Amino acid sequence: MGSALLTDQYELTMLQAALADGAAHRRAVFEVFARRLPGGRRYGVVSGIGRFLDALEDFRFEESDLGYLRAAGIVDEPTLAFLADYRFSGHVYGYREGEAYFPGSPIMVVEGTFAEAVLLETIVLSILNHDCAIASAASRMAHAAGDRPLIEMGSRRTHEIAAVAAARSAYLCGFSSTSNLRAGRMYGVPTAGTAAHAFILLHDSEEDAFRAQLQSLGMDTTLLVDTYDVAKAVRTAVELAGRDLGAVRIDSGDLGAAALDVRRALDAYGAEDTRIIVTGDLDEFSIAGLAAAPVDGYGVGTALVTGSGCPTANLVYKLVAREDASGRLQPVAKRSVGKPSKGGRKWAYRETSGGTATAEIVTGAPMESVGRPLLAELVTKGRVVGREPLEAARERHRATLAELPPAAHSLSPGDPAVPTVFS
Amino acid sequence: MGSALLTDQYELTMLQAALADGAAHRRAVFEVFARRLPGGRRYGVVSGIGRFLDALEDFRFEESDLGYLRAAGIVDEPTLAFLADYRFSGHVYGYREGEAYFPGSPIMVVEGTFAEAVLLETIVLSILNHDCAIASAASRMAHAAGDRPLIEMGSRRTHEIAAVAAARSAYLCGFSSTSNLRAGRMYGVPTAGTAAHAFILLHDSEEDAFRAQLQSLGMDTTLLVDTYDVAKAVRTAVELAGRDLGAVRIDSGDLGAAALDVRRALDAYGAEDTRIIVTGDLDEFSIAGLAAAPVDGYGVGTALVTGSGCPTANLVYKLVAREDASGRLQPVAKRSVGKPSKGGRKWAYRETSGGTATAEIVTGAPMESVGRPLLAELVTKGRVVGREPLEAARERHRATLAELPPAAHSLSPGDPAVPTVFS
Repeated sequence: MGSALLTDQYELTMLQAALADGAAHRRAVFEVFARRLPGGRRYGVVSGIGRFLDALEDFRFEESDLGYLRAAGIVDEPTLAFLADYRFSGHVYGYREGEAYFPGSPIMVVEGTFAEAVLLETIVLSILNHDCAIASAASRMAHAAGDRPLIEMGSRRTHEIAAVAAARSAYLCGFSSTSNLRAGRMYGVPTAGTAAHAFILLHDSEEDAFRAQLQSLGMDTTLLVDTYDVAKAVRTAVELAGRDLGAVRIDSGDLGAAALDVRRALDAYGAEDTRIIVTGDLDEFSIAGLAAAPVDGYGVGTALVTGSGCPTANLVYKLVAREDASGRLQPVAKRSVGKPSKGGRKWAYRETSGGTATAEIVTGAPMESVGRPLLAELVTKGRVVGREPLEAARERHRATLAELPPAAHSLSPGDPAVPTVFS
Repeated sequence: MGSALLTDQYELTMLQAALADGAAHRRAVFEVFARRLPGGRRYGVVSGIGRFLDALEDFRFEESDLGYLRAAGIVDEPTLAFLADYRFSGHVYGYREGEAYFPGSPIMVVEGTFAEAVLLETIVLSILNHDCAIASAASRMAHAAGDRPLIEMGSRRTHEIAAVAAARSAYLCGFSSTSNLRAGRMYGVPTAGTAAHAFILLHDSEEDAFRAQLQSLGMDTTLLVDTYDVAKAVRTAVELAGRDLGAVRIDSGDLGAAALDVRRALDAYGAEDTRIIVTGDLDEFSIAGLAAAPVDGYGVGTALVTGSGCPTANLVYKLVAREDASGRLQPVAKRSVGKPSKGGRKWAYRETSGGTATAEIVTGAPMESVGRPLLAELVTKGRVVGREPLEAARERHRATLAELPPAAHSLSPGDPAVPTVFS
């Protein structure tokens, strides 16, 4: 199935009414932005642009989709005829993946007729709200982990397909690998894994289980040591594997204290190079809290795939300009209580001073020498031109983080790391 | 693509090690359960069983999947050969969709060889953790709304495919419709929609927009009245549509106060039958808070698709019994700190007294006359036998809710509505 029915019904009924009175053909500009960053975060991270470009190319109303819409009586025949021929022919500009964003950043700008642009609202927002939420959490975790690798292992705690996108966003933001095999296959994310308690319990003894795992998967494997008694398991592990044992995993208890005990035991057995991986409901706060513990890597699940308390980025897709009766593009904005919008097509620049970001400059016209331009051409006359490798986005995220002021990395709720200046 | 790579790598590497030492062929029983209900909820709601049965039938390692696993060096050739022939041939028992569950309820029991059952961990948990989380929130919202209809409109705030499953779970738990068209097409969920601010702003005046919508979509449509000035918009709406106007939608401000003002205005204009729909970051608490307001329906988005603060159900998939060397099935359980499990295959019954649920009885053997049996046969020797229409699950949920004690409907955090008794 294509992506065209991943859409809210009102987009199609609005299209019908606008086709009927001719307004559908007015040129229009929609903008994606966040009114605020959830949870007092200091910055958001753009993710999902690549997935959106894939979905846009796939956004076609198939014969069977049209049959459903007709049978359900959702729109009239002229609208069905429009949908049958639908191909987005406009322009899309956007922040690149891995880039930071702030309240009011025009993360994406969609230009086309109202008819062609209004239909993209749901697919744009679904992808960006999910992926940006995960990326924004992942970036904080990766910063808290410092040089220690993070394995994404949250697939089981979120929708099975959302899990694949979550793994992609985590890697983009500095995670080293994922447990999700489809993310490995689809996006080239490195994959990793350890072993579950079920594998230990399957065997008649922990020793049998360790031996089987070492024989089949080699000495560099990671043995799970907390099924029965951690101290005893560590001793058994080293007796079987010797000093070449790759790693052990601890999944329960006070992880900091347990890691210290295990490190001492491993060192006492001469297994100084055996790594300690900890898992178990970790988030950016507990990762930061383990900074002084002898931990060599973290596995993160639930908190990553649920955005660590902020499962959606709250981005909106708003009409900011449209053609009037005389053919001129006019800025528009609603005046609803508590939901301010700023009308007009916008441009955005990251202002820096001495290599550190100082402001997000949002303007009503293109400007020169105000900083790094943030909107890139993604789609030109309906053709995708802005695709890039995931590794490029990962590299950009690293560079973007290095540019943010130190306050950006505070885990406490507070103001955005740089102000957004509308000029 | 099939569902087989929606899997954590460690299931495949555990399989490899267990195939090598022969333990993979031991009979095994895995159980899905929750250690606790998130957020102090009083009950959880089972959802996703139907989706799991679809995913199970689709769980095949295609040639291209095997090619990826081989190229990435994830498992060895004997394991690839096993995966190429993989078809689940065991039994699955489960709670039916719409049923309530409590801590320790054995929501799903999977019986087969270790090899065939261990591979299902991620797909089982991804589907149930997501769908049960959404259903558990939706059920509270539907109860808070009473007889007033709820429209699910959260697609834009969650992953685009998760949105379809969310709409399904919401309908199962009493929502009347969804904005998501693919959920309409795939699952037969009734669809609905109103109009966006973009449609108003597209036109040269609010009056032009209302006129276009009424002419194209008929008098029963829902006009959005908060783009500029609510009072003025309501007057314009009635002037254009007369007393036959279907509904108006308010999306901002103090919804209770605004609904009261709008109701008075509509009544004064003689539009006593025009309904008032409110939207805007509603959850079960704000819905309950609007019970006394003149509201005729709610649109719920973000809070529904994010599980209203609890985006995952925290269900786990644990080995509870497996064959020993002598061929006998033995209960097993880990002893990890703070993560208790109870070994052994289980059966479950809902005990009632005078039509009201009094306990969740979990036993180690089938029993008679202890209450309504909760585990139904879903898969027999690999063949799906437990499919049912979504309407049946929706009806079951209604009946299940009616059976729960009144304390189940408290929105405050607290203990489960009935105790789980292991006997």
